[in-house]
Amino acid sequence: MAFEFPIRVYWEDTDASGRVFHVNYLKFFERARTEWLRSLGIAQQNLREQTGGIFVVTSAQLEYLRQSRLDDQLIVTAKLQSAGRASLTIEQQALRINPEDPSQEPELICTGFIRIGWVNGTTMRPTRIPNHILEQFS
Amino acid sequence: MAFEFPIRVYWEDTDASGRVFHVNYLKFFERARTEWLRSLGIAQQNLREQTGGIFVVTSAQLEYLRQSRLDDQLIVTAKLQSAGRASLTIEQQALRINPEDPSQEPELICTGFIRIGWVNGTTMRPTRIPNHILEQFS
Amino acid sequence: MAFEFPIRVYWEDTDASGRVFHVNYLKFFERARTEWLRSLGIAQQNLREQTGGIFVVTSAQLEYLRQSRLDDQLIVTAKLQSAGRASLTIEQQALRINPEDPSQEPELICTGFIRIGWVNGTTMRPTRIPNHILEQFS
Amino acid sequence: MAFEFPIRVYWEDTDASGRVFHVNYLKFFERARTEWLRSLGIAQQNLREQTGGIFVVTSAQLEYLRQSRLDDQLIVTAKLQSAGRASLTIEQQALRINPEDPSQEPELICTGFIRIGWVNGTTMRPTRIPNHILEQFS
Repeated sequence: MAFEFPIRVYWEDTDASGRVFHVNYLKFFERARTEWLRSLGIAQQNLREQTGGIFVVTSAQLEYLRQSRLDDQLIVTAKLQSAGRASLTIEQQALRINPEDPSQEPELICTGFIRIGWVNGTTMRPTRIPNHILEQFS
Repeated sequence: MAFEFPIRVYWEDTDASGRVFHVNYLKFFERARTEWLRSLGIAQQNLREQTGGIFVVTSAQLEYLRQSRLDDQLIVTAKLQSAGRASLTIEQQALRINPEDPSQEPELICTGFIRIGWVNGTTMRPTRIPNHILEQFS
Repeated sequence: MAFEFPIRVYWEDTDASGRVFHVNYLKFFERARTEWLRSLGIAQQNLREQTGGIFVVTSAQLEYLRQSRLDDQLIVTAKLQSAGRASLTIEQQALRINPEDPSQEPELICTGFIRIGWVNGTTMRPTRIPNHILEQFS
Repeated sequence: MAFEFPIRVYWEDTDASGRVFHVNYLKFFERARTEWLRSLGIAQQNLREQTGGIFVVTSAQLEYLRQSRLDDQLIVTAKLQSAGRASLTIEQQALRINPEDPSQEPELICTGFIRIGWVNGTTMRPTRIPNHILEQFS
């Protein structure tokens, strides 16, 4: 089961093609990951103050399948794909709710595999993810 | 005489109306102010490391007069309007070069009056602008 | 009574000073205006398809009073200040909920007066706001 | 030989970690691709008006290797990796010039493989890239 987070498309998200600017799905994925972490009790600003560590994105793979537009209602998901000692890979999707019939299966717009590494927030060096964080994912 | 900085309009700057998203002129003004400060020998990252202070925007007044679009070439200006002990007011304009005839007078797209205050970068409290910075403007 | 819209601060909203980048309050105000219009039955994408008209921002006045940061929960308001034949002025505020005690009065972070004009979406010429839209505000 | 485009890091590009927000490298890559296309005589706004077609990003793979910060000067490259009938794959890099010694080899910050497809700007359906465009790449 993936975590689901609703995101509305605003003017700021669109470009002159009339669609959501491709870069912005990466923002949507970041918002959904943050809310997913928060739902597991992991608040990033607090974590940084307590442990000195932060998650940083180390790689991203995106596939753009369909379009979304102004006023669209999206569902953005996050799910742990794999966990290492110093990094996690998160599988994410942006799905579009059919505005004429919200009961229909949402349409898959964009998929992402995002790897995040745990680093010391000052030196930016990779570090082992603290156990109390890793335990939230099992 | 105002400082002039060229800015090209990219996909990221536009919205679904086909024009530059109104918010982004405030980004363009920030870029031009930064380059204007740099041209006066004021590098913000260095300043922060040396003095602990940073400039923050305390107010902004924007008038949107005309439109600009993808691929447009803009000139963004910055000029000191007034200087106080802890803040400066900068007058800025975004002008559009006529792509069919660049020798024509550029068209005024957006104007801004931006007040920036000098604050302690840790406490965010207003402080007197260091003299060696103020001297750059006279 | 102002319309209220909750906005969470994500990494994308912050800058290297550790605070919300000043430009992004203008995005937050746009989101809240859009939701306020939607709450009045005014969906901008539909309107454009039906009337050929769109709202564009013609001026903005912003005052930055305090700071907000990553993970902060904001309330962004929208309220009609005045209505003309071809433009509306909207008064907006961004307020920060105290994370330690959400029952406390939220702190005022940023205020804005945003004037939006109704224009033909193709020619971008100002036009009278259709009556059925104006009626939503009274 | 890759096309090279200089990009300066501004406040808008950074986040609360003090570094460039990971999403923004995808913007930098888009700017450099646009300038690369322009250098080959391909102006996207004109193309759209003439052919009705536009390039859209269909996939992106990003690797984040090192950090960049406010005021950094980057070189962003673009190079054709492979060309199909309806899509191109572009290899891109963001490199950081050493501010203390610009004569040193720039440091590799982020790499991307971006696939762009040629679509009908109205229907968004994939179409064969016009020959006069494909010829620019050989």
